[in-house]
Amino acid sequence: MTTVTCNISTSVDGFVAGPRQSLQSPIGEGGARLHEWHLEPEDADLAVIDEWQSTPGAYVMGRNMFGPGRGEWDLDWRGWWGDEPPYHAPVFVLTHHARDPLAMDGGTTFSFVTEGPDVALQQAKAAAGGKSVEIAGGASTINAYLQAGAINELHMHIAPMVLGVGERLFADVSADLRLEPVQAISSPRVTHITYRVG
Amino acid sequence: MTTVTCNISTSVDGFVAGPRQSLQSPIGEGGARLHEWHLEPEDADLAVIDEWQSTPGAYVMGRNMFGPGRGEWDLDWRGWWGDEPPYHAPVFVLTHHARDPLAMDGGTTFSFVTEGPDVALQQAKAAAGGKSVEIAGGASTINAYLQAGAINELHMHIAPMVLGVGERLFADVSADLRLEPVQAISSPRVTHITYRVG
Repeated sequence: MTTVTCNISTSVDGFVAGPRQSLQSPIGEGGARLHEWHLEPEDADLAVIDEWQSTPGAYVMGRNMFGPGRGEWDLDWRGWWGDEPPYHAPVFVLTHHARDPLAMDGGTTFSFVTEGPDVALQQAKAAAGGKSVEIAGGASTINAYLQAGAINELHMHIAPMVLGVGERLFADVSADLRLEPVQAISSPRVTHITYRVG
Repeated sequence: MTTVTCNISTSVDGFVAGPRQSLQSPIGEGGARLHEWHLEPEDADLAVIDEWQSTPGAYVMGRNMFGPGRGEWDLDWRGWWGDEPPYHAPVFVLTHHARDPLAMDGGTTFSFVTEGPDVALQQAKAAAGGKSVEIAGGASTINAYLQAGAINELHMHIAPMVLGVGERLFADVSADLRLEPVQAISSPRVTHITYRVG
């Protein structure tokens, strides 16, 4: 069985992105602060990042994580990440608008899935070659897969800051969700918590 | 200088109490689940609880933590905890309604402070005899002291569950709050995180 993982940086008050995502604010206003711990990682953080980035065989992301556009595609938009995105694996993008697959440098291929989250996850599992599938974000995509019981491991990276407004992890996720604490690592700029889910 | 601490159990989605507190639901509907980890503690949890309960020389709490009543006092109400409350120290209760101090068994004395949070904290510090002061709750009291920069150590005990509704830790606390991760302990039923604040 394919393990489905999710790594997500959050504020202490549970936000994973600020409000009003735009070209200038990919993670919403103020949201980039949640990822500052990547800039000056400690050894413990590097080990976490390495596992996060080297383990998945495929990814699923929501359209808003892929870009700031809505509606019909602007075909010049090829993601936020330049010519060589950091995924190095198949990435399945949830969208209501069909688009041909996009092969990038370094082994990342974006495929655009219009048949909904179940189909996207199925395709990602098939493409993962026996490795895990990572639900890359954003908030509404993660919450939908949590609510569907599709995520097996949740890795929260809690940045030591209050955001106050934005997109919340666990929004509209039922109180029936079963979480089992597995690990907690404290580091000067972030706290890593792992849950087994379901 | 007196250290001001705060220990608080939260859900993964940041709630420290459920909605609609009442005599039947002291921690709001569903809120008692947040404290279930006290019922079957592991050794790591027992060490945390011991530090939490043995360190403070005095406590401050909001009126809603003391009881379900609002407005004028029902003098028969002597707190949720029976004849011997678990504080064994002076407890300063924030209220808009004056009431004479209440000496309980085991060294707990409830004093009722109508002059606001600054005065209550000042009185608690004076009464603590050189030991720390614990802000006992509830959410709005903790958030007010966080916002005022009065709390030095925040101990979050994160229960592995979604609550979905209720009273939020960090509600209306400014994004300027400075938090420094100090410790994280994973246990099967709860995750303990400590921040230095300010």
